[in-house]
Amino acid sequence: MNEDLMRLRIDLAYDGSNFNGWAKQRHLRTVQGEIEAGLTQVLRLPAGDHFISAEHAGMSQYPWVPQLVVAGRTDTGVHAAHQVCHLDIPRETIEGCVGHLNSSPVQALEHRLQHVLPRDIALHRISVAAEGFDARFSALERTYIYRICDNLSVVDPRMRPFVLNIDGPLDIETMNVAAASIVGLHDFGSFARANPGGTTIRKVKYAHWERVSNSSSLERTQFYQAPILESGLVCFTIVADAFAHNMVRSLVNACLRVGLGKQDLEWFKDKVAQPVREGSTGPVAACGLSLEHVAYPPDNQLASRAQAIRAKRTL
Amino acid sequence: MNEDLMRLRIDLAYDGSNFNGWAKQRHLRTVQGEIEAGLTQVLRLPAGDHFISAEHAGMSQYPWVPQLVVAGRTDTGVHAAHQVCHLDIPRETIEGCVGHLNSSPVQALEHRLQHVLPRDIALHRISVAAEGFDARFSALERTYIYRICDNLSVVDPRMRPFVLNIDGPLDIETMNVAAASIVGLHDFGSFARANPGGTTIRKVKYAHWERVSNSSSLERTQFYQAPILESGLVCFTIVADAFAHNMVRSLVNACLRVGLGKQDLEWFKDKVAQPVREGSTGPVAACGLSLEHVAYPPDNQLASRAQAIRAKRTL
Repeated sequence: MNEDLMRLRIDLAYDGSNFNGWAKQRHLRTVQGEIEAGLTQVLRLPAGDHFISAEHAGMSQYPWVPQLVVAGRTDTGVHAAHQVCHLDIPRETIEGCVGHLNSSPVQALEHRLQHVLPRDIALHRISVAAEGFDARFSALERTYIYRICDNLSVVDPRMRPFVLNIDGPLDIETMNVAAASIVGLHDFGSFARANPGGTTIRKVKYAHWERVSNSSSLERTQFYQAPILESGLVCFTIVADAFAHNMVRSLVNACLRVGLGKQDLEWFKDKVAQPVREGSTGPVAACGLSLEHVAYPPDNQLASRAQAIRAKRTL
Repeated sequence: MNEDLMRLRIDLAYDGSNFNGWAKQRHLRTVQGEIEAGLTQVLRLPAGDHFISAEHAGMSQYPWVPQLVVAGRTDTGVHAAHQVCHLDIPRETIEGCVGHLNSSPVQALEHRLQHVLPRDIALHRISVAAEGFDARFSALERTYIYRICDNLSVVDPRMRPFVLNIDGPLDIETMNVAAASIVGLHDFGSFARANPGGTTIRKVKYAHWERVSNSSSLERTQFYQAPILESGLVCFTIVADAFAHNMVRSLVNACLRVGLGKQDLEWFKDKVAQPVREGSTGPVAACGLSLEHVAYPPDNQLASRAQAIRAKRTL
């Protein structure tokens, strides 16, 4: 890496409801777009996509524009409780952001950026990335959760924008038999948008459906128990090294067809065995999906992990 | 009670963000107004406040209009994870709502009402009320929770519309000393809107601040643990026989002043001892407040409870 650049790791969360996904798109509100605009503001960079003011044109670090590399490119409407990205930034640029603050340049950037970002993005932390860290390629695994309400009579309405509402009830036991069948290395071509030139082979480490216990009838003995707004919801937790496009939402759709009795387990297992996309396994609504966690190996394995993951997966 | 009327108990929840509180007000969107309008629709009652069509004018049960009696009249913007109300309804009217449904009149009403209510109200259950039940006067105690985010770096942005955001961090230990001092029978005049002709004496059974444990760093061993969107929030749980107007939000405000070091514990305890309202103990924002539970005694004590509670409290 260029000696004059330092790599920052950014941990954040967002409510995806009002974003056109993570990836920057001209004229659309995206998470990447908002954060890069926030960085442009607090670092006092020239505004505009590629605009370089006369004042800055002669300076060596321009044209530098903030460009984030993300662990999980979430689609329109998908949320993140924990997302990670990195940014390579000229040392001179970040040092200029301390101003009157009594803190390190990285702390100053975190503080300033926290205060300009919109309310639906929560900047959790900015830190200097460990040697060899790459937000996308060093990641060991991603955890997604999909939340469903299958019973209007238990849901807290505050959760409604963040769940899929369906006419239940769901047969969670059978859905867990389906979920168990996807654990391991499989070609998820039945559950992903086609990826010409790439692969839809992924390694699923964990996949499980669970109903969040209902704590709404607060008893005297439970006063110390934290209340849970998610009581009664059905949650699908899935962990994999990486995910093909639309994979979680398509798997959820297929599990739902089994859980509602519209298809049997054989149908599901055939789809796992024969990676062929069909209409009935398209993605369910984005609003219920959330990237919950991105895990990285210990610092001394970051670079080797990044190298290994660039190799194309095969069965 | 009139022999021709039956009393129904209705359990429900709502996201209060877009309501002008519970109580019906002309030309304003309220929870009571929406539910009574829904009842008018599914029971095919004449529309309009007091309008009686020529067709119905001669029928004995008209003019009957649905009028709900509620356990906790929540203010504008306040939520309810569990609210209870009752409705006295002519037997003839509810029997007419079965139609082609293969269910009891009460089940039919529940089913039909669930499908016409707006998405920010969740109708949990309609049941025939036990003898002597009164949603307001039979209630033994109400539980409220107030949610606060004192650290932008831990909050899930999906929770932001439902919490108070403050510049923390909060000294929760000291706030719990303050909270402990309000448990018992006190005149909450310092923490409530004046109540001429009534009293601000209430019996607080429980009051406690707690930070919801942060489960956001999902470890492999915790895969089975349900995710909690509320991780990192600071929650105030308070249980009392009943609450004076603005009491919870005023107590939260006073606790916050102590927790932020702006006032000391003596100041707080003086306010409990001397029930005098002042500006600095006005209510905090409504968005963080939620009625979480209403508790009733066993059925055979409902009527005696209702009689006892109508007596004015004294110290």
